[in-house]
Amino acid sequence: MLQVGVNGYGTIGKRVADAVRAQPDMTIAGVTKTSPDFAAEGARTAGYPLYACDEESVDEFHAAGLAVDGTVGDMVDASDVVVDATPGGVGAEYRPLYEARDTPAVFQGAEAPDVAETSFNARANFDDARDADYVRVVSCNTTGLSRLLAPLAETYGIEKVRTTLVRRGGDPTQSDRGPINDILPDPVEVPSHHGPDVQTIFPDLSIDTLGLTVPATLMHLHSVNVTLESTPDSRDVCDLLDAESRLFVVPERSGIGSCGQLREYARDAGRPRGDVWENCVWGESITVEERDFYCFQAIHQEADVVPENVDALRAMFDMADAEESVARTNAALGLERDGDARPDPRVAADD
Amino acid sequence: MLQVGVNGYGTIGKRVADAVRAQPDMTIAGVTKTSPDFAAEGARTAGYPLYACDEESVDEFHAAGLAVDGTVGDMVDASDVVVDATPGGVGAEYRPLYEARDTPAVFQGAEAPDVAETSFNARANFDDARDADYVRVVSCNTTGLSRLLAPLAETYGIEKVRTTLVRRGGDPTQSDRGPINDILPDPVEVPSHHGPDVQTIFPDLSIDTLGLTVPATLMHLHSVNVTLESTPDSRDVCDLLDAESRLFVVPERSGIGSCGQLREYARDAGRPRGDVWENCVWGESITVEERDFYCFQAIHQEADVVPENVDALRAMFDMADAEESVARTNAALGLERDGDARPDPRVAADD
Repeated sequence: MLQVGVNGYGTIGKRVADAVRAQPDMTIAGVTKTSPDFAAEGARTAGYPLYACDEESVDEFHAAGLAVDGTVGDMVDASDVVVDATPGGVGAEYRPLYEARDTPAVFQGAEAPDVAETSFNARANFDDARDADYVRVVSCNTTGLSRLLAPLAETYGIEKVRTTLVRRGGDPTQSDRGPINDILPDPVEVPSHHGPDVQTIFPDLSIDTLGLTVPATLMHLHSVNVTLESTPDSRDVCDLLDAESRLFVVPERSGIGSCGQLREYARDAGRPRGDVWENCVWGESITVEERDFYCFQAIHQEADVVPENVDALRAMFDMADAEESVARTNAALGLERDGDARPDPRVAADD
Repeated sequence: MLQVGVNGYGTIGKRVADAVRAQPDMTIAGVTKTSPDFAAEGARTAGYPLYACDEESVDEFHAAGLAVDGTVGDMVDASDVVVDATPGGVGAEYRPLYEARDTPAVFQGAEAPDVAETSFNARANFDDARDADYVRVVSCNTTGLSRLLAPLAETYGIEKVRTTLVRRGGDPTQSDRGPINDILPDPVEVPSHHGPDVQTIFPDLSIDTLGLTVPATLMHLHSVNVTLESTPDSRDVCDLLDAESRLFVVPERSGIGSCGQLREYARDAGRPRGDVWENCVWGESITVEERDFYCFQAIHQEADVVPENVDALRAMFDMADAEESVARTNAALGLERDGDARPDPRVAADD
């Protein structure tokens, strides 16, 4: 049983902790929090060993009536591996602490790629993380693009990718962020950092990305163009994508036309926190014009990297190959086609 | 002096009326309203002859204390030409009335292309409207794309255009529209109608467009990719675009990073209603990677077609050639580089 510590029990950390605990071959050794807020209470309620980020904050936890089992160093000592889910840039500051304790770690995509030996996406480059000590799970947007591009590249070949990422302004908890009633080129420069980040997974890929930010908190939405090296039929591409376990091809008959409806669908299905772990690709948008593939896909920024963190752990400890790890993760989360309530889009395609 | 009637004194109609009145060679014969609301009061205050849309509503205007000079038929009789700014689809219903009175008309882009003999953009196909009786000024988004594509096509050649249009949910007055906190593929199908609409101006152009809608009311924002037939330097493309009178290349030193800031800039400059008649192309976004041109441009949906309506009138009555008409319109509106407060982006480019 792999003992996993989660440093930073925030938006990603708490979701990864729950996903790890759901697996048959790993468990949570502890989680850290910087302050005794509602998330810290939630960690206690969930039964996770709780650690303060440093000695100074231990008293703060005790004053709030929350017992802690020590500080982050103690948690690392109790762990076989750490999932670092601290804010972007903070993970790199923690790496020396992990190294000093000879403990491998998984970092998140907001860290620079050089924080780790390799960047990781379960569908695209699982084996690159095998036996690595430090692995970076790429960001939500890069994860979403990697899952979509891997089958396209393998089956049809990719000449060039051009994608516009319509980014949510912040998560629902981030009330201090904007924009309100505005649309911002973000960044104004072309390409955005997303293209180079995808190249950490597909080093030889030609990709240009543009980013902009809008007043929404639910999901990102990608407008994707891929110039293929062949000219498949749109229906065949739809079937190809639908066969991917972490791509949900949204069927026309579902009546789902927005991110809000996707999230409601996940809540109706009983998903924890209403999370959408899969890319959501609108079936009607899957179009091939000559060699140009187009689609819209929505990416739940709080959720899609969660199963990837689990798979990264298995790769690092050589606990399974890619196919087996993904199947095990999906089964434990209830992410399989047969294990959840989502309809089969190919039925709609035949209507 | 060309006598111009405006049928539909709404968002576009009132702006076109003011722009026509500002010209030295045309004037307003009258405007129509369906009800005696604040816009009707505004028309009276502006001194425009006011006409009711039909006999039934005349009493409603009188009851509201607003004198009217007759109904829409009377206004058409008093006009050499009508600018139809009624809601999309209504213009086609009015065309028989204009024809019965042997009166030419300009329609707006929400009408189907076959409402008119030709679709129109002053920069791209002015001469197609010369001596035509019925002309359709293309929509705000199609106008914005046409202005950008014309110089690129002429100077570098265009192999293919791929553009994602991030559409505002509604105008500031349209409180009944959405979305709130969401991002919608709109339409879900690819391509959106915008590509075919651009082809009413550039019949041989290869263009795919994708549309989506977000919670914003200020401007549309386009993420543009154009695969050129040559490989110009980004700086040269910036200079080319900046030389266009209805393209505002937003300089980096302006600190303008959002649609809200663009609109504030126009208000600061004293523009009527804070209108932005030009495409706003972010200079920093103008990028050429091999043969792929990229940029972000913002389009003020209430304003950019206004000078185009004025030019369409001149084309139909052979009052000027394209260059002279655009110069005359721009001068009357204060849209020239030297006539307004906007900085020269090339200064910034040399910084």
